[in-house]
Amino acid sequence: MAQGKAGDYRILHEAALRDYLAGLPDIAALLGAEPVSWSITEVGDGNLNLVFIVKGDRGGIAVKQALPYVRLVGESWPLPLSRAHYEYLALSRQAQLAPGLVPTLLHHNETLALTVMELLEPHIIMRKGLVAGTQYPRFVDDITTFMARTLFFTSDLALSAAEKKEAIAAFAGNHALCKITEDLIFTDPYRIAVQNRWTVPYLNQFAASLRGDMNLHVAVSRLKLKFMASPEALIHGDLHTGSIMVTDDQTRVIDPEFAFYGPMGFDVGAVIANLLMAYFASAGHERSPDERRAFEAWVLGTVEQVWNEFARKFLDLWRADARGDAYPATLFAGETGSARLEAERKAYMQRLFGDAVGFAGAKINRRIFGLAHNIDFELVEDPRKRAVSEARSVGLARALMVDTAEFPDIASVTTAARELRTWMPEFATG
Amino acid sequence: MAQGKAGDYRILHEAALRDYLAGLPDIAALLGAEPVSWSITEVGDGNLNLVFIVKGDRGGIAVKQALPYVRLVGESWPLPLSRAHYEYLALSRQAQLAPGLVPTLLHHNETLALTVMELLEPHIIMRKGLVAGTQYPRFVDDITTFMARTLFFTSDLALSAAEKKEAIAAFAGNHALCKITEDLIFTDPYRIAVQNRWTVPYLNQFAASLRGDMNLHVAVSRLKLKFMASPEALIHGDLHTGSIMVTDDQTRVIDPEFAFYGPMGFDVGAVIANLLMAYFASAGHERSPDERRAFEAWVLGTVEQVWNEFARKFLDLWRADARGDAYPATLFAGETGSARLEAERKAYMQRLFGDAVGFAGAKINRRIFGLAHNIDFELVEDPRKRAVSEARSVGLARALMVDTAEFPDIASVTTAARELRTWMPEFATG
Repeated sequence: MAQGKAGDYRILHEAALRDYLAGLPDIAALLGAEPVSWSITEVGDGNLNLVFIVKGDRGGIAVKQALPYVRLVGESWPLPLSRAHYEYLALSRQAQLAPGLVPTLLHHNETLALTVMELLEPHIIMRKGLVAGTQYPRFVDDITTFMARTLFFTSDLALSAAEKKEAIAAFAGNHALCKITEDLIFTDPYRIAVQNRWTVPYLNQFAASLRGDMNLHVAVSRLKLKFMASPEALIHGDLHTGSIMVTDDQTRVIDPEFAFYGPMGFDVGAVIANLLMAYFASAGHERSPDERRAFEAWVLGTVEQVWNEFARKFLDLWRADARGDAYPATLFAGETGSARLEAERKAYMQRLFGDAVGFAGAKINRRIFGLAHNIDFELVEDPRKRAVSEARSVGLARALMVDTAEFPDIASVTTAARELRTWMPEFATG
Repeated sequence: MAQGKAGDYRILHEAALRDYLAGLPDIAALLGAEPVSWSITEVGDGNLNLVFIVKGDRGGIAVKQALPYVRLVGESWPLPLSRAHYEYLALSRQAQLAPGLVPTLLHHNETLALTVMELLEPHIIMRKGLVAGTQYPRFVDDITTFMARTLFFTSDLALSAAEKKEAIAAFAGNHALCKITEDLIFTDPYRIAVQNRWTVPYLNQFAASLRGDMNLHVAVSRLKLKFMASPEALIHGDLHTGSIMVTDDQTRVIDPEFAFYGPMGFDVGAVIANLLMAYFASAGHERSPDERRAFEAWVLGTVEQVWNEFARKFLDLWRADARGDAYPATLFAGETGSARLEAERKAYMQRLFGDAVGFAGAKINRRIFGLAHNIDFELVEDPRKRAVSEARSVGLARALMVDTAEFPDIASVTTAARELRTWMPEFATG
């Protein structure tokens, strides 16, 4: 991995990037022909970074460079370049643990906060596919493998306590990215904040409710504390459908720059929340009534399978590969011990499910009342229709967060979603 | 603070220590007269280190030097010298947060793993006083101030998430000391381990029960996981009555080499557990029936006050000094918000109480079945009498760990202790 002196950071726009890549023999060989013939296109539609697609006559690559500020907001919101280091660290670990489910790393330059990866083609951002009503048959199996393996193998169930502490420390410096989550997901949507926005005027009353609902404030504060102080595993930290690229038969998880040791339920809840939003948004994308009923049924089925398959795979790993310091095998010897440990594994998964449910609610609210929205809702052009989809999502989100214990299993979540699908909210638009 | 090159570590026995201290002008001035006249006595009765008391004609100091192995066991059990660094770090922080409740730091040498502190005189190790039946009127106020302030001000309630993550990372390297706790407290007493011992033959059946009780194994494994993966605050990590020095009107907490970011309940539970053991051991120290009833009543009253005063002080700090990122004040504005937050504070303390109760149970069992015992029981010469006191403690310990929810408040703990005080266990001594 190329290194440079601290302070040598510069933003590589097209010409400089071409020169830089030409100086990397492996990359140049992969692209082929003369550097002058490479096409370089900036495609970053995320909130934080520059992303280039570079193509030569032999192949293509993706280049991601961190900017020293939040791209969505501008230079007024500085953000440390070190996030590229943590993203690289997380991606490397994920590649070991879930091979084939993250893009292949080709080059990393710490000083430039720049990473070169395989070009994912013809993959598209999953969220775009969901907006279009596309079903992804590989998704459940791939995302649950990714989550089960990356979370299990970085947890106390698989690591010694010493390895775990060192790993937590290795990601401790990524706190600026954590703070974005702490502020934008767990705090701002519940108070007056200049960056908040929502579908006006329809959701004005809903936003006011969010700000005045003290049971919800307690719930979100408990989740925030759990996010801050429960380093259960190396989590992706931003595992929404915009961080997943798909084809019919491939799934790739990208952009782990928010990675750190946090609660597993945050990743699982992120996937569930974003599928639930795709479900509620779907009505807004119908060109004729019930046009997308099959898609919607697939989405809810996927929500159920995401949890069920994740839990099944996580438990299988625990049964087979528990080399960590938690729940030592010597304490659960024999038939009785084995049965009691199996019951405790189920109880552990039940606690994790509760976390995922709560975090899912928080992830929904932030997309409707906070700074960063998503195209599931944003591409519904009619604001009233959009507000209907959003209001249904928000109704579910509150229940998930405040009445978490009333959702004993994933079927109870999809049942609640299905019931809300036909609810017509009344909007006080005064 | 003097520093040397890595690899320059050497054990300073009397002559070398005298030369070393003579080279420290401030220390030499404090001791007075000629170095040759200083008295140097090794007094370490702990399990890990060398401790010297050095006295000159003007004053005295205590010198603590870490050995590269566990003193209690010998060179066959190596232990990193870095623990002296973490002890120094923790002691410095505790001195800031709880001034007057830890010994004054006079000098620290990282390379020699050596720390010079004020000589605590005429303080004695509290455990010795408790064995003798001494009551300590200052203890409740001092220990609860120490715990409330050191735990609150290093928690997410007082620190930003960034400060907290950096602080966790700063102590992450102390994992060898954490592992001692993980093994000796949370694992070994519940399985066959060569270092285990107990009062034979009386407790043989109890030891076997401990090894076969799967509900207890689940309970201790949950506590172990909490110990490993809940960095709530900078905990002392070994806060038993052997780590507390007292006079009638002073209390000093010493020896924080096990310090790291862990669950607050571990410290609170340690204090409660060691008082409960002093209570149960007391019967074994009676020279005539009921001789120590007043002392025992004081001990149980102290258990109650330790929790109640700790909770009161912690809550007061939270109400006054909540500058951390958890439970942001802006989410709990106005009268309704304020009332809801106050209710949540109480719920938070209730969860912390449950942790303390569970950890207290684990701390009791390890002193009766594990490697490191304590003089509360060990100084009861008649093994049957000792076993009676130990069996009563173990009965309570199991309930605290397995039926934690049945102890809603500290009075329910002392009530259970009082009931067990008259229980005469039957020993199957075959």
